[in-house]
Amino acid sequence: MNPNCLTCEVLSGKRRAPGGTIFQDALWEVGSVLAPVLVPGYLIVNLRRHCEDLKDLTPDEAAALGSVLRTTCAAIHRVLAPPRIHVASYGEAIRHIHFHVIPRHAGMPPGSLGTELYIRWRRLLYRMGRKAIAVGNAAEIVAQIQDAFDRIR
Amino acid sequence: MNPNCLTCEVLSGKRRAPGGTIFQDALWEVGSVLAPVLVPGYLIVNLRRHCEDLKDLTPDEAAALGSVLRTTCAAIHRVLAPPRIHVASYGEAIRHIHFHVIPRHAGMPPGSLGTELYIRWRRLLYRMGRKAIAVGNAAEIVAQIQDAFDRIR
Repeated sequence: MNPNCLTCEVLSGKRRAPGGTIFQDALWEVGSVLAPVLVPGYLIVNLRRHCEDLKDLTPDEAAALGSVLRTTCAAIHRVLAPPRIHVASYGEAIRHIHFHVIPRHAGMPPGSLGTELYIRWRRLLYRMGRKAIAVGNAAEIVAQIQDAFDRIR
Repeated sequence: MNPNCLTCEVLSGKRRAPGGTIFQDALWEVGSVLAPVLVPGYLIVNLRRHCEDLKDLTPDEAAALGSVLRTTCAAIHRVLAPPRIHVASYGEAIRHIHFHVIPRHAGMPPGSLGTELYIRWRRLLYRMGRKAIAVGNAAEIVAQIQDAFDRIR
């Protein structure tokens, strides 16, 4: 636990993502991105331990990562069937290791830059007061993904 | 092997990335991004098999992924020590599963969008004729990363 880390706050239960935890074992945790959710089914895969660089993963953490990412993508696919699913770890604003798992839906611009700008544009509109742009049933979608996740793994 | 797949062309040796293959086993391959290299140490981790969705990884492929990503990041860190390393799989223009492993150097704008725009801007300049913007010693840097990779794993 790092007292100044947003991801540690999620993992300790101090902050709660819409729909709560989808999956958790000793090494990794899966849940929704924090509100406002601007893309249906946008999830985050968090390392349970506070560690800031992928190079410092333990062998056990590294060995479990691919399976968690695969099951997360499979569960999103089963519920939402987006044309593509983006998986990315940047570690810039929040350094604690986490992966964004972003369904790129048919209505979104394809490609990494298009998706990035789409989300940032929606976040800007939300901050300017267009609260209705956030996904209204985010917790319900997460519950469906959690159900799919449990069936798949 | 998919005859219309750029990644399959790399894996079969039909196309060669600067410095050649850094690592290869039965499941994953690591090498440089294809020329022009616009960021020193920009690598690609390719799945050996033609498969287009992370949800369809085999258990063996999934189990090996984290270790390959970790060692790739560790080798880049040892040679170039960038402040951050971005790891991302979009699967849009090239659907064959691959991960971009991008050192975000101190001179580059931080954050996912900044890095994305930085690379696209340099690619545009290169295409407009500014060939000197490409990394001149890309193969040499890859050789150093390969050496580090072999020592770490």
